[in-house]
Amino acid sequence: MRQEDPVATTTETDAMRRAIALSARALGATAPNPVVGCVILDTAGGIAGEGWHHTAGGPHAEVHALRAAGPAARGGTAVVTLEPCNHTGRTGPCAQALIEAGVARVVHAVADPSPAAAGGAATLRAAGVDVESGLLAAEAEAVNIAWLTSVRRGRPYVRWKYAATLDGRIAAADGTSRWITSEHSRADVHRLRAEADAVVVGSGTLRADDPQLAVRGIPGAVQPLRVVVDSRARTAPGARVLDDAAPTLVAVGKDADTSHLTGVDTVRLPAADGRPGLDVAALLAELHARGVRSVLLEGGPTLAGAFVAAGAVDTVVGYLAPALLGAGPGALGPAGISTIAQALRLDVTDVARLGPDLRVTAVPAALQEK
Amino acid sequence: MRQEDPVATTTETDAMRRAIALSARALGATAPNPVVGCVILDTAGGIAGEGWHHTAGGPHAEVHALRAAGPAARGGTAVVTLEPCNHTGRTGPCAQALIEAGVARVVHAVADPSPAAAGGAATLRAAGVDVESGLLAAEAEAVNIAWLTSVRRGRPYVRWKYAATLDGRIAAADGTSRWITSEHSRADVHRLRAEADAVVVGSGTLRADDPQLAVRGIPGAVQPLRVVVDSRARTAPGARVLDDAAPTLVAVGKDADTSHLTGVDTVRLPAADGRPGLDVAALLAELHARGVRSVLLEGGPTLAGAFVAAGAVDTVVGYLAPALLGAGPGALGPAGISTIAQALRLDVTDVARLGPDLRVTAVPAALQEK
Repeated sequence: MRQEDPVATTTETDAMRRAIALSARALGATAPNPVVGCVILDTAGGIAGEGWHHTAGGPHAEVHALRAAGPAARGGTAVVTLEPCNHTGRTGPCAQALIEAGVARVVHAVADPSPAAAGGAATLRAAGVDVESGLLAAEAEAVNIAWLTSVRRGRPYVRWKYAATLDGRIAAADGTSRWITSEHSRADVHRLRAEADAVVVGSGTLRADDPQLAVRGIPGAVQPLRVVVDSRARTAPGARVLDDAAPTLVAVGKDADTSHLTGVDTVRLPAADGRPGLDVAALLAELHARGVRSVLLEGGPTLAGAFVAAGAVDTVVGYLAPALLGAGPGALGPAGISTIAQALRLDVTDVARLGPDLRVTAVPAALQEK
Repeated sequence: MRQEDPVATTTETDAMRRAIALSARALGATAPNPVVGCVILDTAGGIAGEGWHHTAGGPHAEVHALRAAGPAARGGTAVVTLEPCNHTGRTGPCAQALIEAGVARVVHAVADPSPAAAGGAATLRAAGVDVESGLLAAEAEAVNIAWLTSVRRGRPYVRWKYAATLDGRIAAADGTSRWITSEHSRADVHRLRAEADAVVVGSGTLRADDPQLAVRGIPGAVQPLRVVVDSRARTAPGARVLDDAAPTLVAVGKDADTSHLTGVDTVRLPAADGRPGLDVAALLAELHARGVRSVLLEGGPTLAGAFVAAGAVDTVVGYLAPALLGAGPGALGPAGISTIAQALRLDVTDVARLGPDLRVTAVPAALQEK
């Protein structure tokens, strides 16, 4: 999938690095749109303007950057993390805006895979603009992986996060789990939440821990939709997840009694085929329809097992505390795997030390071959 | 515990680094003795001779190095990883040999904690030799940690090794486990075995996997004693662990029927207090009496839990394969820990990538405060 970098100047490469960093500022804030950053270089190669897409409905990155550049954009180069869009949505097409500003060259990192918006490069070329694609594509794709995956798969991107001891336990035998990991790891989880459009937990975790699931400690963060997967509607009206810190959706089964959940946003979903709980694909389709492009799955083990069984985990983020318990629930419950040959094999993409803990990031091995 | 480095020249520091590396060559081969390396510097600071202790009963490191240096040792400096011994065992005291060779100065890394051999520094000083202690003490101690721990605790040093998936499973639901980790990790385990004096497994692992437990692929390695903890003497006469690749000891309960184990070295040990299996302290005492100073505990989870419960795990080495199973036995079985406050907290001392796997090394947090 990775391609050779195209012909680009050092200045353009530096500008793309800057554009990627700008795009990342809006992670978790742009759904259902991608994150995009843009730097406009003037004819001398200096930075004339820069911008990034802040929120859906607001100006695209190119428009922000063109406004900042003003007349200096004429004859210059637009360096943008994603192929400029070609469609008129809530804002006009960026390809047209770039042409009207007199930009002579456009360098983008990743082609737009969405049927509605693609074609910007062709429009630009037809207007005589020099277009290069693929500069720092891997880096740009990594930042935009949630949105790109959601377009390719037609469902939200799913990052499964768990916190466990070295021996794989998420709680002790008596159910206590506060705290297995350190404050460093817990702060990092708030970053993951802030970058997600929705945070998903099962009803078991809800009843065991009564988590609030809101983002704390990250100024300016957009609160994700909190989603409780609760087939029998056992969420208590006083659960912290129902407070007003963020919106909440409770997904329940077809026949669940929701009379105690007055005023709570609920959705009825079909049961899973051949296992307890709700159908994961139906849940993801519902979230996708609501504009969710990235999901942080926070567990517990039963729900995580259902997601793994459904092939719906795109990235695993494990926070491993250097501690041993020897008993208690494991991080991952039954996932339809009964023998070693069926193990879900992953590739480790990152290992970090967070205070005393380790954070291991891994992706299903097969996904790297797409 | 760590002390300031003493006054030492750059040449002496380099020589100590070399001496530590030499000492490590004999890991697993010197029990019940420590590993020791020695470099003799002549009066000009050049390396006149070097050596290391190869095997118990053979010459000590200082003797090897003095022989290599010959007359060049006179007036020179002996750089040695452990305080020169002061006692006459199967070989003469090294302190005396250094004095007779006319060495003017001795720099050692770690003081000898064993009552029988300590006092070398005092003997040297009494003979007018200049003695410095503590140079690169932490590095030298790390290599000799098994022997030093065995002296301090009066039992063998125990390194617990396990291989598990990211979700902490050592086998799938059907018991299959070949292979969870990669060939890189499995080769590394053979290195751990080669560095140990004994390899210990429980009877459950023996029946499930029929491991041979010998060192393979490491030329010149001394085979460790293979120890099966088998309270009911259920080891089959044809088990691979009983082959002639290495010596084997089967530890059984007081009343076990061992009639099928003719010709096998067995020892009867008391039952554990309040849990199934044999008493861990009694097992370690038996191994210590047999000259074992370092033990590689290879599991399974029940035995590992017994060792953790007994406070008898000095280092944890976890090989984590990037794979998920969602079911199957965990790496660590019941260890007498029922609530999170009782978790055995560790400090991570090393994280390494071995092919696709991670190797995490950690030590009980309390042990660092000794």
